[in-house]
Parts: sequence; C-alpha cells; structure tokens
Amino acid sequence: MTDYQSILERTVQHVQPILQHGKVADYIPALAEQQLGQFAIAIQTQTGETYSAGACDAKFTVQSVSKVMTLTLALQRYGDDLWQRVGKEPSGTAFNSLTQLEFENGIPRNPFINAGAIVTCDALYSRLSAPIHTMLESYRLQTGNPKLGVNKVVAQSEYEHRYRNAAMAYLMKSFGNFNNEVEEVLWSYFNFCAIELTVSELAKCFSYLSNGGVCTQSQQQVLPAKQIKQLNSLLFTSGLYDAAGDFGYRVGMPGKSGVSGAIIAVVPGRFTIAVWSPGLDKVGNSVAGIAALEFLAEELGTAIF
Amino acid sequence: MTDYQSILERTVQHVQPILQHGKVADYIPALAEQQLGQFAIAIQTQTGETYSAGACDAKFTVQSVSKVMTLTLALQRYGDDLWQRVGKEPSGTAFNSLTQLEFENGIPRNPFINAGAIVTCDALYSRLSAPIHTMLESYRLQTGNPKLGVNKVVAQSEYEHRYRNAAMAYLMKSFGNFNNEVEEVLWSYFNFCAIELTVSELAKCFSYLSNGGVCTQSQQQVLPAKQIKQLNSLLFTSGLYDAAGDFGYRVGMPGKSGVSGAIIAVVPGRFTIAVWSPGLDKVGNSVAGIAALEFLAEELGTAIF
Amino acid sequence: MTDYQSILERTVQHVQPILQHGKVADYIPALAEQQLGQFAIAIQTQTGETYSAGACDAKFTVQSVSKVMTLTLALQRYGDDLWQRVGKEPSGTAFNSLTQLEFENGIPRNPFINAGAIVTCDALYSRLSAPIHTMLESYRLQTGNPKLGVNKVVAQSEYEHRYRNAAMAYLMKSFGNFNNEVEEVLWSYFNFCAIELTVSELAKCFSYLSNGGVCTQSQQQVLPAKQIKQLNSLLFTSGLYDAAGDFGYRVGMPGKSGVSGAIIAVVPGRFTIAVWSPGLDKVGNSVAGIAALEFLAEELGTAIF
Amino acid sequence: MTDYQSILERTVQHVQPILQHGKVADYIPALAEQQLGQFAIAIQTQTGETYSAGACDAKFTVQSVSKVMTLTLALQRYGDDLWQRVGKEPSGTAFNSLTQLEFENGIPRNPFINAGAIVTCDALYSRLSAPIHTMLESYRLQTGNPKLGVNKVVAQSEYEHRYRNAAMAYLMKSFGNFNNEVEEVLWSYFNFCAIELTVSELAKCFSYLSNGGVCTQSQQQVLPAKQIKQLNSLLFTSGLYDAAGDFGYRVGMPGKSGVSGAIIAVVPGRFTIAVWSPGLDKVGNSVAGIAALEFLAEELGTAIF
Repeated sequence: MTDYQSILERTVQHVQPILQHGKVADYIPALAEQQLGQFAIAIQTQTGETYSAGACDAKFTVQSVSKVMTLTLALQRYGDDLWQRVGKEPSGTAFNSLTQLEFENGIPRNPFINAGAIVTCDALYSRLSAPIHTMLESYRLQTGNPKLGVNKVVAQSEYEHRYRNAAMAYLMKSFGNFNNEVEEVLWSYFNFCAIELTVSELAKCFSYLSNGGVCTQSQQQVLPAKQIKQLNSLLFTSGLYDAAGDFGYRVGMPGKSGVSGAIIAVVPGRFTIAVWSPGLDKVGNSVAGIAALEFLAEELGTAIF
Repeated sequence: MTDYQSILERTVQHVQPILQHGKVADYIPALAEQQLGQFAIAIQTQTGETYSAGACDAKFTVQSVSKVMTLTLALQRYGDDLWQRVGKEPSGTAFNSLTQLEFENGIPRNPFINAGAIVTCDALYSRLSAPIHTMLESYRLQTGNPKLGVNKVVAQSEYEHRYRNAAMAYLMKSFGNFNNEVEEVLWSYFNFCAIELTVSELAKCFSYLSNGGVCTQSQQQVLPAKQIKQLNSLLFTSGLYDAAGDFGYRVGMPGKSGVSGAIIAVVPGRFTIAVWSPGLDKVGNSVAGIAALEFLAEELGTAIF
Repeated sequence: MTDYQSILERTVQHVQPILQHGKVADYIPALAEQQLGQFAIAIQTQTGETYSAGACDAKFTVQSVSKVMTLTLALQRYGDDLWQRVGKEPSGTAFNSLTQLEFENGIPRNPFINAGAIVTCDALYSRLSAPIHTMLESYRLQTGNPKLGVNKVVAQSEYEHRYRNAAMAYLMKSFGNFNNEVEEVLWSYFNFCAIELTVSELAKCFSYLSNGGVCTQSQQQVLPAKQIKQLNSLLFTSGLYDAAGDFGYRVGMPGKSGVSGAIIAVVPGRFTIAVWSPGLDKVGNSVAGIAALEFLAEELGTAIF
Repeated sequence: MTDYQSILERTVQHVQPILQHGKVADYIPALAEQQLGQFAIAIQTQTGETYSAGACDAKFTVQSVSKVMTLTLALQRYGDDLWQRVGKEPSGTAFNSLTQLEFENGIPRNPFINAGAIVTCDALYSRLSAPIHTMLESYRLQTGNPKLGVNKVVAQSEYEHRYRNAAMAYLMKSFGNFNNEVEEVLWSYFNFCAIELTVSELAKCFSYLSNGGVCTQSQQQVLPAKQIKQLNSLLFTSGLYDAAGDFGYRVGMPGKSGVSGAIIAVVPGRFTIAVWSPGLDKVGNSVAGIAALEFLAEELGTAIF
C-alpha cells in the first residue's frame, strides 16, 4: 500500500530550497500581503482518506481554482447548453486578454480563463437567487466544514481592482453574451474567488474529479461520470492558463491553479491533490506547487499517459 | 478478451451515414482528387496484434500525422534542446497563422502546427545527410513494409503550393530560428507529408506511442518511456490544431490529424488506433474519423480520464 | 468672387441620385429612426458669411464630430500634456477596437477614435465642475444660438447601449489611464455626442478650424493658430476612422465624420464646410456627405495638395 | 524673395547639436557602416532652382524613398487599377508587420510600407522587361545625372537579409496577390532601394511632387496633376511608417523617409525638400532630418494647414 504520508513529507522537504522563489500576486493589495516561504499539500484518496503535510492549518483563498466549481455548478444547471456561451479550446494567450475575446465575438475560449469564468458566473447568476450562498453551500458540503466562508477583505479588494475584468464583461455584453448587470455578477465572481479554506479542505472539495463525480466527503454525485471525464480533459488542455502544455509535459495530470498559489491536480480513479505556496512564476502559477506536483508525479507514477 | 475485430466492424457501420459529410482538402490539386465516402480503421495492440476494417488496402498520404514522426526523430537527436526552438503550448489559432509567430518572435507555439513542424524539420535537416531516406527508413522499419514510399505527385503538388509555408519559414529565418535553405527544408517537409501507406501500416508505425516507446513491429525502443509520456501529453494539448480541446472533450485520447483525412489516437498501455476518411470538417479534421474515435472511446472505455 | 450659394445648390442636385444609398446607423434605436433621403450642406467663410442649401432647418446630433470640440476644450486646458494620455497616430483599425488598445497599454491611438475621445473626455471631466454645461456654452457661443441643447432621448439611448465603450473605458482604467468614474464620464460623453443643431450651426461652430483658431461667429480665439495647424493635421491623418486615407485621396481636406451622417471639412484660410445626410457606408461615413465634399473639392479647388 | 540659401545654412547650424543622436540602421551590414554626424539638405523650387547646404557631395542610397518612385511608375502603367492590389489607409503598425497583412488577406494597407512597395514592385515587374534599367532611366532623367546608379554592395547585402520581406511576399502569394517569382521581384526591389545619389539629386528627382506632376529638371509630366494631389495626400497619411501622425503634427508636409536617413518633403506649388542624416530614431526616421524639416516648416511657413 502506498505510504502517502511519507511521500507528502518528502515532498515538503523537496520544495524547501525553492520556497522563497517567485513573487506573491501583487495586483491586489490583499493578496500582496501573503508571505513567501509557506507551503502545504494534501491528498484526498478515492477511498476517502486525507493525507496532508506542511502548513496544514493555513488558510488561503481559492482564487481561480474556484472556476472549476463555478463551471461544475453551471454544468449541473445547463448541461451542454453552456457551451453555446463559452468554448472548449486552449486560449494560447494570457489569462486576461481582450484581443482574442474581441476577435471571437465575445465567446471566451474556455471556462478557465477570466472571461470564460465570468460568463459562466453570469449564466449561474441567472439561475440562482443567492449565488454566494449556494456556492458556499457546495463548498461546505464537499469539505464537511460548515463554517467555511468568504474572506471579505480579499473580495472587496479584488472588486475595487475589477477594471480589466469589467472591461471583459462589458465587451461580452456588447456582443450579447452577458445577461445580468456587470457589477453584480463581478461581485459574485470575486466572492467566489475569495472563499477561504485549508489545503485538506481544498483536496476534499475537489475529490469528485478523481472519483467519477462522487465527492468522497459528502458521497454526493456532483456530476455524472461522463461529464467528469470531459471536465478533466478541459482541465488538461486549458487549466493552467498559458502554461497548460508545459504543465502537461512536466506533470501529466489535469489541474487548475490560482494566484493565491493554490493548485489542484487530479489522478482519475486514485486521488485529488491540493497544494499551496504563494510564490508565483511569470505566468501566475505557484513555483513550489508545480515542483511538488512534478515530484509527486514521478514518485507516484501518476502521469496520465 | 476484447473482440477488437467485431468492434471495428461495428465502427465501420456506425460511420456509414456520414461518409459523404465534410469536404476533401482542396488547397492542393493532388489532394483534391480524393473521393468522399472512403473509410478505414485499424488497431495495433500493445501485444502486437493488428486489427483492421473498411478500405484496408487503400493508400493515403500521412500529411500532418508526419509531424509526430518528425518530432520523434528530432527528439532522438536533440532531446530537450529542441524546445529552445519550438514551444509546448497550444496555439489558440489556426494551424497556419503567421500572426502569433510574428508576435512570439519566430518561435512556433508547438511542433504540431505547420511552423513548428517546419522548424523541427529544419533542425532534423541539420543532422541528416539524406533526410527523406532516413525518414523512409523509420517508416519502413516500424511498418515492416520495405517498399513504403513517397507519393511524388502529391509531394510536388504541395511544394508548388508552398507559399504560406514559405512565408512562415522566412519569417522564422528573419528571427534567426531557421538554419538551412528554406526551399530545401520545405522540399523535405512536403516529402515527409507525402509518405503513403495503409491504415494498418499507420497504426503499426505509431505503435510505440502506446507501448512505452517500443515499436510493436520492430521491437525497437524508438524513444524512452518518459519522452513518450511527454509526447502524448503534447498531442493531447496540441495535436488537433485548433480543435484539441473539443477532441479531448469528445474522444479523450492524445491524437494527431492530417488533411488527407488520417488520424492517429493513442491509448497508453493498450493500443494505437489509425483511422482514415477524406471528408474534413471546417478545421481540417476528418469528420468520420473523429466520429469513429468517439464511438470507439465509448465502446472500449478508452478515454484517459 | 465665388458664388458659393450656386455651388451648394448644384451640390444638392449632384447628390440626389444617391440619397437613398447606405444605411442609417442602427446600433442605437434613437439613431435608427433617422430617415434616408435627407441632405443639407453649409459653408461658413473666413469672413463670416454663411451659405447653405438642402434641408437647412433639419436638426441632427453631432455624434463623433463632437470629438473635435472635446479635444479643443481639452487642449485649452492641458496643452501638449494631453498627449501623454492619447496618441497622434492613425489607428489602422475599426473605430471601436479594443485589441490595439490592449496591445498599446491603454493609450488610445488618437483622439478621434472612441477610446481616444473617451479618455479626452475623462481628462476634461477632471477639470470641469459641470462638463455638459461648459460644453453647451461653447456650442452656443460659437453658433450664436443660445437655445442649442442636448437631445436627451438620443443621449439616454446611447448610454443604454454603452457596453463596448464601457469596455474600453474600463480597459484604460486597468492601465491607469482613466481617473474618474467610468459611468459618469460616459454619461458626459454621450451627452456631448447628442448635442443637436442644424447644418449652418455646425459650420459656424467649427469655423475656427479654417480661420487660424478664431471663431467667425463669436470672434473668440478658440485655440492658438499653431495648435489649429496641428489639429487639422491630425484630422487629416485620423479624422475619418479607418477611411482617412481614402477620404484624403478623394477629398483632400481635413475632416471629421459622425454616425448621424454629419461631416465637417476644413479648407484652411478659406472656409469650413458642414454636410449632413444619414445614409452611411460600411465604415460609418455618410455616403452623400462624402460625395458632396468630393464634388465641392473639385468645383472649388479646395484639395490641400 | 525668400533667401533659401541662407535658411538652409541656418538649418545646418540648427541641427549640429543633434547630429550624433539616433543610430544608423544596423539590420543590414552595408548600411551599418554609415557614419553618424553627417547631414545634407537641398531645396528644389518650382521654378527649377536648386539650393543645398551641408554634405552636398555625399552619396547615399534612397532606400524607402524609392517607394514613391516605384508607386509613380506603377501608377503610370496601371492608374486606379493598382488600388485593387494595395490599399490607401495608414497601417497603424510597424512597417514590416505580417500580422495585418495576414488579417487583411494579403492586401497591404498602403504602398509605403514594405509589403505595399513589394506588391507594387511585383505589378511593375509584370510590365517591364528590364525593371532596374527602366527605374534608373527615370532617376537619370529626373536628376539630369546620366551616371546615377545602384550601389551593388548595398543591394546584395539587402538581398542576403531579405527574409522578412520574403515572408511578406510569400504570404501575399499565398493569397493570390503576387504574380512573379518572389526572388526575382525582391532582387529588383532591393536594387531600387540601393540607387545612390546626392541630396540635390534627390530633391530634383521628386520635384514633380511639388510642381503639379512636372519634373523641374526634365520638364516632363511624370503624372497628371490630379494624381499628384492624391499621391501627396497618401504621403501625408502614410509616408512615415507608424509616425505619420506625429510628422504631420510637427512638420505639416507630405513626406517619405528611408532607413539610410533620407527624407523628402513636399510643399505643393512651392518646392520639394530633400534631407539626409543617418542617425535614426526608434521608428526608423532620421532624427536630424525631421528636426531640420520642423525648423524649415517654421521658418518658411510651409505647413499645409
């Protein structure tokens, strides 16, 4: 039997030398306050065990990892109809580019770049009376932590620096691909990004991705197995912004990163990994987080191919 | 035990209604002569059995599927140094765009778009005294057919319509990312594209992708197992031009397509599939070929995730 | 002495056959109600005479011709400092493109495309306590019509369809090139566009452009003579969106057009021409308006070169 | 009467402090050998007098100023039909960009960017049995110097570094907008660029632009007066690459620059100015050349508007 605990502890050792590498996200004051040098990792197995190492009690915001949950909730409500409003292809450009969005008439390339997540959020907003409440319910159910909440300072700070995201939303609205008030949807979007949790909670929350759609904590079928395969495929091709190809090359798992330094990675049929370390590389992915996943992929033989 | 033969025959039935769909590639006279309505499929298992159905004796040119072999031969000679000249990221644009190439200073996004294959070809050209000879040797060894050759009419026709590819090559040369004479390298490139074989030969030829790097026909280690994982990952993120995301979503396997209507798809540890049908969709992928792979993925449970 | 009246009447005859050509602007309901078939033209000479022909009593909104007045008021207050926030080069793209704006870090190419006018408006907004009031004052003084006002239905309608302009404003704000609240500045901007006047009033209003900076109606020095030369040069290179080259080629005068079908053209040292006809060509310029200017240029020998 | 000689000598004094500014063109070895610190200027009046000051005997290659002569010869042969193959609009991008060319289907924006000059050259090539011979004939006739020739070292050097221009030509050929062999047309193109003359010869050569189409040296009608107006208008909107707006703003005359540091400027009905100084600014225009024209515009009141 695999000794996950031991491997995770070796992973913590492995990344020590690079924990000061990279930079914390500085475009939003509340994120810029994060300290370099922190690291935490957790594995949630298909059979429901949780293993973790490093700063396991540290809380961080999910940031763009939330895009996976937003998509999940939208797929529950729209199914394949959602793909009329957002594409399934890698973007080949930075995560917040407007050029491609203009060129492609307001249809974002995929749900994991900002424009795609915002339009998904708009779709979800149309179907929910209290979007943040519903979103938090999902997180609470899937982590088993009923107290899990939004870091309001971060949400407010992100909202106050919403300009580029607002530009995208208005551009989509000009193309008829945005149905609600821009400011309201963005407020939901930033609240979704500012949900705060620990690394183990993050792994539990996305356990359904490695378990055919069933959350190992709540035992609920979050999405049908077929949609999970599709979702993992999209994460593989588009989950890491403009570094998906390199991540696939090095790590070989579907994954999603956020500017807080969080990353999730999925080994279908085995486990979901969550990792967190605030130092980011140039494209906005956690330096130590990716190194840890690369190490684990080697140790556990988890690469898909 | 899986009855591959029966499944392949059902696949042939399954695609009958759409064999007239799509259009044959018309930008090159020699390709425009292909007839709609043809279809062939083959599976080469890890244990070396070959199954095939449909127009098994029909010969077609590999076209862009050759990019996988070109990359393979270049990786044999350069290893990771090759990535200084070509990237690993999905392009997010059409397969023959110059815009991105200009914006990114003559470094193509990945080796499966035309510019990337041409620069890989240029790298290979620098290390081979007789490039077409060496390339044919590989195909002959890996298919077991010593007579396999180039369709010279097709090669010549493609060369005569080389303008856009020449533009890319000269643009890369202007950025210092092209070392040989443009016309000579393009001549090799088009000859590589015009290698002609049957669907079973195509499956055999790329059997090393599903077998840890070992060709099931020749028993040679074509590439180390680790590079095969990396190569399959790149195929998954970038193998189908600007439809990689959708292909991954529907089919869930690494693959590569060509404008002759050929596609290969890889199920690591199980088999390599080759399929051919000349009717192409708008992005240049075989309509019936993709439908067949989607059907097989469902029947055989081959999706990666 | 030139018989302007006679020439203008011949111009009216000349354009009769094409008055039904083109389409009225339809992206805003209040503009879409304009009727094809209308035409009016006026000349305001350097010595202060006004000649007009056609539908002289018809009122129309200035639309993008207002960008010239916005720039004028901003130059009065900022001088050359204004050029730190907006460029002086032709855009080479459609008037409302975000791609170039993103690529050039939120600095619009020139003050006559939407983004450039909006940022100029933002600059002006920072210096005025009641922007619309001050703007109307200028128009009233320069036309001699103290009752001249804003068509509030049009202003409101444009504001309600502000999405693309809002996207531009937010994009500039994300680059730090926007200082006030987006919604407030856009409200001013659309009010400026919706100022309503007759063709003679339009010619009077911009008489300072052909008269070394002095308005022939108010006798005020609106801008110094040197800045007028510069402004006319900018109008020549960038005044007609993406048709400046063709307009210069055919008409040979500095000019500015608006989607109401209004155009002004300047013959330095001689006169300002105003023309109005709602049928627009594909790039958004008045079909009959341009034909009239081309006819006049030939008749009066007004081409600059 | 204007004392042109005195004004030119004062211009030479005026630019002394900046003669070491900028950089010589370095992308071609033969041009990189030019020395900073050189300056020459000449005026060719409408009545046929030539005034000059500075390094009047120095020879330099015309480079992109040749694009005006190429266009002139093509207009003689094609008239307005030429505009089916090249546009009349400013480009809004660098002089050698492929992005816009791809986006606009191989039709260059105007004849003064490289792609536009190359396609004009291709058109001319189709109508001439000995293109370089015919081109030299024009220069010899219009300068009165029968010995004027091509600097073969420069021509050869430019040809050897033709890659980006070759990329453009092949891209146009892929769109069907190129009729002859790329290599042959480029050879002509580079020979046209490498024609060598003095500053007075340059002014004489383009005297027809300020004289209604009649060369003041040869007294030939090079182009009809109407086409000259059109040509000057195009020079005003597009003559200085991506600095046409700024040049118009500062200098207020139609002009054309080249990377040898040569510039011509036109005052219709008065004179043609030629200036040369090898130090280039960031967009490739002569630093001292533009400063000299700005000084002259002020001294002589030559701004158009």
